[in-house]
Amino acid sequence: MSKGRFEAFSDGVFAIAITLLVLEIHIPDLHDPTDATIAAFIRSLAEPLLTYAISFATIGIIWINHHRTFLTVKRIDGNQLLLNLLLLLTVCFLPFPTELLGKYGPFPSAIAFWSLSYWVMGNAYGALWFYTLRREGQTPTLRMIAASQIGSLAYLLAAIVAWASPPVAIAINAAVCVWYLLPGRLEISENGK
Amino acid sequence: MSKGRFEAFSDGVFAIAITLLVLEIHIPDLHDPTDATIAAFIRSLAEPLLTYAISFATIGIIWINHHRTFLTVKRIDGNQLLLNLLLLLTVCFLPFPTELLGKYGPFPSAIAFWSLSYWVMGNAYGALWFYTLRREGQTPTLRMIAASQIGSLAYLLAAIVAWASPPVAIAINAAVCVWYLLPGRLEISENGK
Amino acid sequence: MSKGRFEAFSDGVFAIAITLLVLEIHIPDLHDPTDATIAAFIRSLAEPLLTYAISFATIGIIWINHHRTFLTVKRIDGNQLLLNLLLLLTVCFLPFPTELLGKYGPFPSAIAFWSLSYWVMGNAYGALWFYTLRREGQTPTLRMIAASQIGSLAYLLAAIVAWASPPVAIAINAAVCVWYLLPGRLEISENGK
Amino acid sequence: MSKGRFEAFSDGVFAIAITLLVLEIHIPDLHDPTDATIAAFIRSLAEPLLTYAISFATIGIIWINHHRTFLTVKRIDGNQLLLNLLLLLTVCFLPFPTELLGKYGPFPSAIAFWSLSYWVMGNAYGALWFYTLRREGQTPTLRMIAASQIGSLAYLLAAIVAWASPPVAIAINAAVCVWYLLPGRLEISENGK
Repeated sequence: MSKGRFEAFSDGVFAIAITLLVLEIHIPDLHDPTDATIAAFIRSLAEPLLTYAISFATIGIIWINHHRTFLTVKRIDGNQLLLNLLLLLTVCFLPFPTELLGKYGPFPSAIAFWSLSYWVMGNAYGALWFYTLRREGQTPTLRMIAASQIGSLAYLLAAIVAWASPPVAIAINAAVCVWYLLPGRLEISENGK
Repeated sequence: MSKGRFEAFSDGVFAIAITLLVLEIHIPDLHDPTDATIAAFIRSLAEPLLTYAISFATIGIIWINHHRTFLTVKRIDGNQLLLNLLLLLTVCFLPFPTELLGKYGPFPSAIAFWSLSYWVMGNAYGALWFYTLRREGQTPTLRMIAASQIGSLAYLLAAIVAWASPPVAIAINAAVCVWYLLPGRLEISENGK
Repeated sequence: MSKGRFEAFSDGVFAIAITLLVLEIHIPDLHDPTDATIAAFIRSLAEPLLTYAISFATIGIIWINHHRTFLTVKRIDGNQLLLNLLLLLTVCFLPFPTELLGKYGPFPSAIAFWSLSYWVMGNAYGALWFYTLRREGQTPTLRMIAASQIGSLAYLLAAIVAWASPPVAIAINAAVCVWYLLPGRLEISENGK
Repeated sequence: MSKGRFEAFSDGVFAIAITLLVLEIHIPDLHDPTDATIAAFIRSLAEPLLTYAISFATIGIIWINHHRTFLTVKRIDGNQLLLNLLLLLTVCFLPFPTELLGKYGPFPSAIAFWSLSYWVMGNAYGALWFYTLRREGQTPTLRMIAASQIGSLAYLLAAIVAWASPPVAIAINAAVCVWYLLPGRLEISENGK
C-alpha cells in the first residue's frame, strides 16, 4: 500500500475523532430558562471542558507521534494496516468514554473506564510504533521504550487511583498530556529518532 | 475525472463513516446515578462494543480493498463515479443498522437488517470492483470471484440464521471480518492482483 | 490561493455533509420492543431512506460538478473563495431539511422547505460555476445554461407542487437526481466543457 | 514536520467543525404536528440560521487566513504544532456555543459566552500567526497588527454589550465577519503579506 492514502485516511480519522469530542458536551433542556440558570450552566462547564481538553490533547499527541513514526517509512505492509486499523478503532472510541466522564464525572467507574480507554489506545499505538521501528531495521533505545511506557503505566495508575481520589486520577491523565507536550520531551523524541 | 480527488473524497467518506459509528453507542440518563449503576452500564457494553468493532472492521476492510482496486487505475470514468457513489451511499448508511443493533440487539429483525446492509454494501463494492477490473482489461480468476462472493453469501446466511439463533448470526458476521483480515487472505488478494 | 487546499477543504466538507445525512434518521425508543415492532419500524423506513438517497445523490452530483468546474482552473481568487464558502454553507445545511422531511415527511411545509434548500444550493453552485467560467474566458453555451437552470426550476416547481401533492413533489426532486445522473447527461456536460 | 500532513490535518478539522455546526440546530418533537406548526417552526429558524451563518463564516475566514499564513512556510516546528493544536481546540469547540446560542439566544449569558469563544479562538489564531511571521523573519506592520486586533476587540465588546442589548451584540459579531469578507480587506491582507 502506498503511504499517501494510508496517511490521508489516518489523518481523516484523527481529525474527525478529535472534532467529534465537542458533540459529547450536552446542553440541558431548561424548563424555565433565565439568564441566571444559563450562567450557572456555563460555570458548571469547568470540569467537562477540562476532560474535553485532555482528550483533545491526547488524540493530538497520538496524531503527532503517528506522523513522526511514518515520516521516513516508504511502504506500508499488511501487518501495519492491521495494527493501524486497531489503533484507529481505539482512537475513534475515545469520544464515548469522554462523554461518559462528562456526564458522570465524579464517579470512579467513569474515570477508570476513561483511563483504561487511554491505556488501550496507548498500547495499540505502542504496538504499531514498535513493529514499524523493527521493520525499518531500527532498534529502540531503552530511553525511547521508557518514554513510551511511562504514559501507558500512568493511565493504568490513574484507573486504580480513581477509586481512592477521582481528582488525583484526572490530574494524572492531565499530567501525561502536559509531559508529552513539554518542549524538552518533544525534542528528546526527535533526537531519539 | 482525475484519480486524486476521487480517492480523497472516497477516503474522506470512509474515514467519517468509520468514525461516526461511535456516536451510535448511547449513554443512558440515569435518574439516580451511583458508581454501581455506572459500572453495570460499562459491563453491559460488551455486546454493543462487539458490533461496533465488527462494523469498524468491515468498513476498514472495504477501504483497504477500495485502495487496492484503484492502485493501478489511471483515470476514472462516469460509470465508476456512479458505482462509487452507490458504494459510498451504502457505506455511509452502516452507522444506522449498527445503532439499531446496539439498541435492539437480541431481536432477529435488527440482526437481519444489519446483515442485509452489509450484503448490499458488499454487492455495491463487488460491482465497482468487477467493472474496474474489466475496464482495466483484466479477467478475474475463479479464485478471486469466489473470494469476493464468500463474504456476500455469508451476510445473506447470517440474515436468515438470525431468526434461528441471534448469537450465531453475529458470529458469522464476525467470522467474515476475521477471515478477510487473516494474513493469508490478504496475501492471496495481493498475489491475485 | 493554491488549488490544492481549496479542493481538499471543499472535498472534506462535501464528504462530511454527505456522511452526516445518516445521523438524521432516528431510531425510536420503543417502550416494549418486540421483534414485530422492530420489523414494523424497519418497514417504515422506506420513505426516510428515499429522501436520504435523494439528498445523498444531490450532494454527490454537486461534488462531481464542483470537481469538473475546477478541473482546468489554475488559481483561485477572492471572489471564488467567497462564492465557494457560500456554496459550502448551503451544502452543509442540507442534513437539516433532510431530517425535517424524514420526521414530518407528509406535510407540505417540510417538503417545500427541503426543495427550497436545494434551490438555494443549486443557485449558489450556479453562481460559482458561472463566475469561474467567465474568469477562465469561456462563454457558456445556451445548452449549458439551460442544463444548469432546469434543476433550479424543478426545485422551485417541487416547492410549489408540495401543497397540491406531496408525493409528486418528492418525485420531482428524485427525477432531477436521476436526470443529472443519466449517462447521456453526464456525457453532454463533458462535451459542453 | 512536513507541511503536507500538517495542512491536511488542519483542513480536516476545519472542514469537520464547519460541517458539524448544522447538527446543533434541533428539530422539536411536535406532539400533534400540523402543517401550520411545522411552518411556524420553519419561520422561527431565522435567528438560529443567522448565528449558524455567522459561525460558519467565522470558521471559514480563519481557515482562509490559516491557509494564507502557511502559504510560503516550508517547515513546521514543535511550537507551531502546539499553537496549531491550541487553535484547532478552540475551533472544534465553536459548535457548542453556537448550539447554546441557538437554544437560549435571547439571554445575555449565551451571547457573551459565544462572543468570548470567538475571542479565545481569535487570540489563538493571532498567537500562531504572530509566531509564524516572526519565525519566517518577517515583521508585521502596524496595519497588519491593527487588522488582527480589531476582530479580537470587537468580540470582547460584543460580550460586554450583550447585557445591554442582545441584538446589538449579535450585530457586532456579524459585522466582524462582513468586514473580514469585504473584497477590500481581503486584498489589503494579501498586499500586507
